[in-house]
Amino acid sequence: MQARPTFQTIGIISRPRRANLAAVVPPLLQWLAARGIRAIYDEETASSLPNGGTGLTRQQVATESQLLLVLGGDGTLLSAARVAAPRGIPILPINMGSLGFLTSFMLGELYPALEETLAGRYPVSERVMLHVELERPGKVIEIHSVLNDVVINKGALARMMELQLIIDGEFVCRYRADGLIVASPTGSTAYSLSAGGPIVHPAVEAFVITPICPHTLSDRPVAIRDSSAIEIKLAGNTESVFLTLDGQTGIPLQAADCVHITRAPNVLKLIQPPNKSYFEILRSKLKWGEA
Amino acid sequence: MQARPTFQTIGIISRPRRANLAAVVPPLLQWLAARGIRAIYDEETASSLPNGGTGLTRQQVATESQLLLVLGGDGTLLSAARVAAPRGIPILPINMGSLGFLTSFMLGELYPALEETLAGRYPVSERVMLHVELERPGKVIEIHSVLNDVVINKGALARMMELQLIIDGEFVCRYRADGLIVASPTGSTAYSLSAGGPIVHPAVEAFVITPICPHTLSDRPVAIRDSSAIEIKLAGNTESVFLTLDGQTGIPLQAADCVHITRAPNVLKLIQPPNKSYFEILRSKLKWGEA
Amino acid sequence: MQARPTFQTIGIISRPRRANLAAVVPPLLQWLAARGIRAIYDEETASSLPNGGTGLTRQQVATESQLLLVLGGDGTLLSAARVAAPRGIPILPINMGSLGFLTSFMLGELYPALEETLAGRYPVSERVMLHVELERPGKVIEIHSVLNDVVINKGALARMMELQLIIDGEFVCRYRADGLIVASPTGSTAYSLSAGGPIVHPAVEAFVITPICPHTLSDRPVAIRDSSAIEIKLAGNTESVFLTLDGQTGIPLQAADCVHITRAPNVLKLIQPPNKSYFEILRSKLKWGEA
Amino acid sequence: MQARPTFQTIGIISRPRRANLAAVVPPLLQWLAARGIRAIYDEETASSLPNGGTGLTRQQVATESQLLLVLGGDGTLLSAARVAAPRGIPILPINMGSLGFLTSFMLGELYPALEETLAGRYPVSERVMLHVELERPGKVIEIHSVLNDVVINKGALARMMELQLIIDGEFVCRYRADGLIVASPTGSTAYSLSAGGPIVHPAVEAFVITPICPHTLSDRPVAIRDSSAIEIKLAGNTESVFLTLDGQTGIPLQAADCVHITRAPNVLKLIQPPNKSYFEILRSKLKWGEA
Repeated sequence: MQARPTFQTIGIISRPRRANLAAVVPPLLQWLAARGIRAIYDEETASSLPNGGTGLTRQQVATESQLLLVLGGDGTLLSAARVAAPRGIPILPINMGSLGFLTSFMLGELYPALEETLAGRYPVSERVMLHVELERPGKVIEIHSVLNDVVINKGALARMMELQLIIDGEFVCRYRADGLIVASPTGSTAYSLSAGGPIVHPAVEAFVITPICPHTLSDRPVAIRDSSAIEIKLAGNTESVFLTLDGQTGIPLQAADCVHITRAPNVLKLIQPPNKSYFEILRSKLKWGEA
Repeated sequence: MQARPTFQTIGIISRPRRANLAAVVPPLLQWLAARGIRAIYDEETASSLPNGGTGLTRQQVATESQLLLVLGGDGTLLSAARVAAPRGIPILPINMGSLGFLTSFMLGELYPALEETLAGRYPVSERVMLHVELERPGKVIEIHSVLNDVVINKGALARMMELQLIIDGEFVCRYRADGLIVASPTGSTAYSLSAGGPIVHPAVEAFVITPICPHTLSDRPVAIRDSSAIEIKLAGNTESVFLTLDGQTGIPLQAADCVHITRAPNVLKLIQPPNKSYFEILRSKLKWGEA
Repeated sequence: MQARPTFQTIGIISRPRRANLAAVVPPLLQWLAARGIRAIYDEETASSLPNGGTGLTRQQVATESQLLLVLGGDGTLLSAARVAAPRGIPILPINMGSLGFLTSFMLGELYPALEETLAGRYPVSERVMLHVELERPGKVIEIHSVLNDVVINKGALARMMELQLIIDGEFVCRYRADGLIVASPTGSTAYSLSAGGPIVHPAVEAFVITPICPHTLSDRPVAIRDSSAIEIKLAGNTESVFLTLDGQTGIPLQAADCVHITRAPNVLKLIQPPNKSYFEILRSKLKWGEA
Repeated sequence: MQARPTFQTIGIISRPRRANLAAVVPPLLQWLAARGIRAIYDEETASSLPNGGTGLTRQQVATESQLLLVLGGDGTLLSAARVAAPRGIPILPINMGSLGFLTSFMLGELYPALEETLAGRYPVSERVMLHVELERPGKVIEIHSVLNDVVINKGALARMMELQLIIDGEFVCRYRADGLIVASPTGSTAYSLSAGGPIVHPAVEAFVITPICPHTLSDRPVAIRDSSAIEIKLAGNTESVFLTLDGQTGIPLQAADCVHITRAPNVLKLIQPPNKSYFEILRSKLKWGEA
């Protein structure tokens, strides 16, 4: 539980082209206005309003808010997390479709969740994020914070790629694979799980490094402390290799590039339903315990 | 063992840019000439000759030969198989590097292997190939024979793709995955193995269908009879999806494309060392039984 | 579809202690009697009758029948298969609980299924069985036919065991593992699947050999032709090692024992619902394509 | 590196029936005596001495020593760890066979390693251990500290077992499986790895829970914080179910038993070669990076 915060401005970030936004957003704005809370929103949210209205960039929304309300699914939340975490503001995630790993409030819970959040009564799950720097010889050309995973992978037409993994300055191994995933505990149930990685509870201070279709069958997922400094260098073929962040942002890599990954300085504060635990969501999403 | 064949013309196909070809090919041509055998060769082989010489396309080499001698690794053999199998001519594979799954004669065995082959004394392993047709609404736009695998996969920057699998006209399932591999028994120890598929002995009349990083964890590899007709249709996202043949040929797919896969009418005849069995090569390549 | 057979005697085999048998069996016996069909049954079935009645051994039931009606789940069917297959009589499986891989008629379908079967209108799926011989130096001491799988595994308190696998007289490899599963295609969706084996369609003429928790991570499942002769010999520790047949019959092994596995001479004839395909049952049991 | 300790008494624990002990132990005892260090040893070590001598129990050896010298393999070390860790004394492990995950000094390094250790110059790797209590209704009947893993598994002849997993008082899931492994990071490269678990670096404060051959294919390994309280209860069949500690001690379980696992209060202090890192040992043991 949190000490009662003051939310003068709430930012709304919505999943693009979600049909039912038009029915959800206008009454939500009225509800907030009636409580003296200023609402600002991104362009996707604006486009669902009858009068159009002017949306802000997600960066701007995050900069001016004390709370982000996310209307969408896990994908929208990943995108919102990248602007919320560096500013230290919490996210209240409302699912617009089926249950997500991250967006575990359902649409019908919107107003009760808001009321409880405004009253400071919801638990906040703090999620470690990954800080990524892409170094091209001589300088760092990209810096990002991501919630789920940093992936280095080859294009569809490329042959197997080779990567070198270095942890805290020590050579770990050379992978021949389709790619390599570095996932946070939160990301362990996303792409890494499909590639054979373990489920890592959010309280574990670790990152998981999972190779994608490795040539060497003993190249198994490895969990390391999240205080480690991870470096990944390309080896061998470097045509058509990409750095992908949370499955959303893709950056083409070049031969001498080095990707540096560490724990981000800020965590994501994710507001959670008090009655739906981490394991309950796992059971539901992974269909555990059914016949 | 084979009835003694007549090899009037032997075609040579070489791995590009293989340093030691220049030392291997000239004496090989002399050896063949001394036995009254005509040798023809591809451009890679020609480029290793001191006088340059004129190479033929691999198609032409295969058309005019009764035997293909392949100097290279498994990659060169996959390429040679596509021209040899439809013409029914056998391949004598000579490895120019480390032991391959397919190219199990070593360079030092070149002349003994040739002598035994000319005398009809080597066993031939018949390998089933995959016949692939790419249907774009209204017509078939690509037809290929491949030895290892047919892969439908997404580009590095694309989100997860969806595929429908239909076998003998019956809907089997819908995959959400990075892609899908259809492998012959020969291909079962290549990409499919890295993706979690089983090892299938070449004598088993089956294809293996292996999903790549499937979202649904119970989407496990399936082996079906090789007399089945496999159809794969794209569903959902169809941007940046490719058909890849033996990891060598890539073809971009479009939304309504359908990939049809059946057993090819001709098998590949692969000449094998009598003293190195399938399982011995597996043990060596997969490092079974060590430490 | 089958040529119309003549079923003068139908044998009934039931799952022990199944509560609803008492409601199902008496009207079933009347239904059969009304059609002039003689019914015989095992002791489990007899114990569900109001007057007790005298049950026969399952062997006797199979010997005197032209059709076996199995009331139970996959476990009861495995047991019935071992007496039905050697006598060439088909099984009509009726599920008394939730959907099984093998028992795909539901209880509500009992009478329609019987009528169609008596009329010879149901498809029969022929399932290859495994013939197992346990050789203790000098003689064969056990001979069995099993439908799903032959497992050699260590006891709970034993250390890792070692096994040698020999196929058609050739040494394949030495496993250090908890055990080894040899599964038919039918058995590929049972224990072998849990241990990491592939799904093998019943029409594929192959057996799958799946190691259980192998020490060497590249010891992956292998599919071989079902015409192969498989031999498994114990190596290293041989205390507390067992041969288990279909998960139902366990036999302690000794140091110099050799287990021989081949394709059984007779197949199991399994009557199937025409409207529920193999893949439909897979989709349902493995929850493919949901969420 | 450690502050220079004082080792007045060194205990020696040896692997039983190791042929070369007879050549190793006598000069070792002389070497220690020449340095004024008292040596005590277990019965296995004593039995390798020419005059027999009297060995102590391993408990006694640990109680009276400031350092344990282990001559053996990983198995001997697991056994020594259980007596060393609760007393806080470090272990210097000397491998008598091939490289182990834990016993990474080779026999040829015995004297240099001893000299460096006596001089306080070797790094000590602190390894978290598992504290296990077996509760039979009403009281705790077994208490142990183990280094690698706590396993609950079924006997060879038993059917699949069912287990309930409870973490910090919350129900997590019900497993139908051959068993369940709870491994420390050190144990993650032992049995858990064979069962499909991830490699967990010793610095990660987590335990891995890995099901053995789970019936539900989405029952994947889970890593949780090592400050968690794990409870495992039997469900369904409880015949022939065992609790196994480090693969060495087996205890039959009964229906209402509950196994409690927490982080042990003491860590194992394992002396390590400064020039052989964790990842280097992994590369060697798992044959990473080879052809």
